[in-house]
Amino acid sequence: MAERKIGMVLFDGFTAQDFIGPYEVFSRVPGWKIAIIAKMKGLIEAEGGLKIAATDSISEDPEMDILFLPGGSGINDLLKDSSFLEFIRGKGIRAEYVTSVCTGSLVLAAAGLLDGFRATSHWRSLPLLKLFGVDVSADRVVADRNRVTGGGVTAGIDFALYLVCLLEGEILARQIELGLEYNPAPPLRCGHPDIADRQTIEREISRTSGIYKERERIIRGLISRGK
Amino acid sequence: MAERKIGMVLFDGFTAQDFIGPYEVFSRVPGWKIAIIAKMKGLIEAEGGLKIAATDSISEDPEMDILFLPGGSGINDLLKDSSFLEFIRGKGIRAEYVTSVCTGSLVLAAAGLLDGFRATSHWRSLPLLKLFGVDVSADRVVADRNRVTGGGVTAGIDFALYLVCLLEGEILARQIELGLEYNPAPPLRCGHPDIADRQTIEREISRTSGIYKERERIIRGLISRGK
Repeated sequence: MAERKIGMVLFDGFTAQDFIGPYEVFSRVPGWKIAIIAKMKGLIEAEGGLKIAATDSISEDPEMDILFLPGGSGINDLLKDSSFLEFIRGKGIRAEYVTSVCTGSLVLAAAGLLDGFRATSHWRSLPLLKLFGVDVSADRVVADRNRVTGGGVTAGIDFALYLVCLLEGEILARQIELGLEYNPAPPLRCGHPDIADRQTIEREISRTSGIYKERERIIRGLISRGK
Repeated sequence: MAERKIGMVLFDGFTAQDFIGPYEVFSRVPGWKIAIIAKMKGLIEAEGGLKIAATDSISEDPEMDILFLPGGSGINDLLKDSSFLEFIRGKGIRAEYVTSVCTGSLVLAAAGLLDGFRATSHWRSLPLLKLFGVDVSADRVVADRNRVTGGGVTAGIDFALYLVCLLEGEILARQIELGLEYNPAPPLRCGHPDIADRQTIEREISRTSGIYKERERIIRGLISRGK
């Protein structure tokens, strides 16, 4: 089993589940060493106020075989942070795999790492990923050469099991899926617009409309300036 | 919508996903205020080395309407910690709801909070929960009066959505399930012994046999001393 360095990049306003699903899977792979990377070492604040400690800072230029980005409301600030996007781009073009969950793919796209690739995002943000010219898919996990992206939030678990299966084989991936008791039974059965009722979809679109509109404005600005 | 204080109790060696699944759901409920409680304030280390900041210490005697415990390898030490179990018992007998995910239910049982109740745990630990005389179920989410317990690791997402639906209604629970894009598609389809192949089950039982035997010894010791 190959040793691999996993660079999981966090930022204030990330979605905790986007990150922890993959963390829980990756940390069970023998030989995979996880670095939790942020602009500065210290505590990073997730949505909801939870604080997680970064192990490495961007300025230390940590090595990584796999680049991973979660999503969250905090990506709106990242999309405006050219030095952060430059760091992501630099790591991504050298990485063995470039990966994301949820709206993390918008950051990869803004860093130019999804040009000419097929990718996915949270269902709510798929139109925004399209603005970048990415070949957008609504699938829960999308792999195109060395880009592997997951859909919204909980899709990170499926994404991570897929990646481990791809890189370390099905035997280990099966064992991790069993260890995580990943035999889900969503109680409301409405976890995607394809299966949810109209009112729930409209409520969720309305709840997120402020952040969505701000995000769209930022992305259109990036694109008009040639990224 | 009622204000509720949620006491999520962490300890070194907890399983990050056990905690974050419910955190991600609970933090999206307007009016629910989450305290992350540990023996001491400061950083708590999850399995795999990840560090999360506690917001409250046990000695501050934080109020809570809902008591929540995740599981993890670290529960073996908790089961030997009588002052910790006394804290859990004291909070549990006053709480509106007493809840857990994964092997957190073994701690609730050791604190006497599941006597006469139906409950569940990680599939691997169901026989240990039975040792306490608990009415054990292999269901993914089990509710019995004000005790609500979830199965292993990822069952925390189902558990938390169930609890929010119960306490705050289906409209909000549906919206959160859609926001989390909880429309899972486990890539290996072997997340429970009922659907996994024999070899995967045997490998996972073998991997966890050391910690299981230690846990069984501790629990038999507790029981022989009348808990």
